[in-house]
Amino acid sequence: MNIVLLDERQTQSDVWKISSKRQLEHLHTHVDVKIGDTLKVGILQGKRYLTKIVDITETAIHVQPLHEEAVPEKLAVTLIVALPRPKVLRRLIMDSVTLGVEKIILLHSYRVDKSYWQTPFLQQLDHYVTLGLEQAGDTISPKIELYKRFKPFVEDVLPTLISEECPAYVAHPYVDHKMPFAIEQGCTIVIGPEGGFIPYEIDLLIKNGCQAVSLGNRIIRTETVIPYVLGRLFSAS
Amino acid sequence: MNIVLLDERQTQSDVWKISSKRQLEHLHTHVDVKIGDTLKVGILQGKRYLTKIVDITETAIHVQPLHEEAVPEKLAVTLIVALPRPKVLRRLIMDSVTLGVEKIILLHSYRVDKSYWQTPFLQQLDHYVTLGLEQAGDTISPKIELYKRFKPFVEDVLPTLISEECPAYVAHPYVDHKMPFAIEQGCTIVIGPEGGFIPYEIDLLIKNGCQAVSLGNRIIRTETVIPYVLGRLFSAS
Repeated sequence: MNIVLLDERQTQSDVWKISSKRQLEHLHTHVDVKIGDTLKVGILQGKRYLTKIVDITETAIHVQPLHEEAVPEKLAVTLIVALPRPKVLRRLIMDSVTLGVEKIILLHSYRVDKSYWQTPFLQQLDHYVTLGLEQAGDTISPKIELYKRFKPFVEDVLPTLISEECPAYVAHPYVDHKMPFAIEQGCTIVIGPEGGFIPYEIDLLIKNGCQAVSLGNRIIRTETVIPYVLGRLFSAS
Repeated sequence: MNIVLLDERQTQSDVWKISSKRQLEHLHTHVDVKIGDTLKVGILQGKRYLTKIVDITETAIHVQPLHEEAVPEKLAVTLIVALPRPKVLRRLIMDSVTLGVEKIILLHSYRVDKSYWQTPFLQQLDHYVTLGLEQAGDTISPKIELYKRFKPFVEDVLPTLISEECPAYVAHPYVDHKMPFAIEQGCTIVIGPEGGFIPYEIDLLIKNGCQAVSLGNRIIRTETVIPYVLGRLFSAS
């Protein structure tokens, strides 16, 4: 946690109150906060401030904003991922948010186990978004959308996410064309499930505007490939 | 598991026997193997083959090598990491191995909790290396070294890992110089602990040949920063 995120309604007076159990526990255990210390505090979907701790009680830490700080910029990327196992989903959301992905789309695909759509984690995405933002020092949540039907999404929604200024890449092991790097524009990235997209899905993605690109001959897990691909694509920014 | 790894002594006859409980379970549960199917099999520290399944019993799967396949190339990189929490360590080893890191060094540093050196995971690194190799389809383990004293390592060992053809980068948030990308040579990467290196450590690293470079103003966790940095540095290869 490199920033404490508060709701806008917690920041209406001159002194702001941090009272979430999770945040207090972190601040007391890992940061060892004292009155007079400075603390980075962000307003969810708003600005970010350097604050000063003015009071500490058993149930709250009170801070006063000193001055505004820059919120890190987002990456102009839409990340489309075949819904992974719940444990992987959690990491994927946190990492994507930490790295600044602007929009995340979770998609069904042939090799996605249908039970994954029942996981309680899908009801708790906001929580993992907050953890990702607090890690990065960011305040702005990405958009997250869920599509439980592959074909209608790829035929009707995906084309609206692709343009000359915003190409779409699907990572696929069996093609010659390498994934680009250090691009200077936004893009859409499509990542398949464990075991990969089936040929019908790859064909439909390509038919609807995706470029199939390879990441070399190592097979990389979903949760690892996301930071790997973002590091590669956005190295110039 | 995208390849089954066997020890050399399991591959002395014409027919090879896969009998590890973990590997059998994976093959029966996730791959649904049948006699006549092909299977990718690697010899640890050796070659990699496409094989044919010739017999399946309750306790073993027997395969016959058909032809040799290329083992993925390694990245010419030495990754030096402040020893993280055990759970993070596991992921870090698996991911680094999957991505092809040639050498991993685990290092003590001021903000590394001393108890981390007692974790049983440190006795099981080989297991996580195998999982990483099996994910990638690789057969060659990276070298792994442990250094429990920061200063002697940085002063005596680190300089031997740095040259004009192999620069060393330490990720550090408070410098102007950005981490390079798409480099066409090998390098050494130094990643600090949660909370970062202390100023004394950063100074000592720089004094001994490291370049302090920034990854932008988002703070990224150790396990996420490793694929992110490798994707960035080695995008041209």
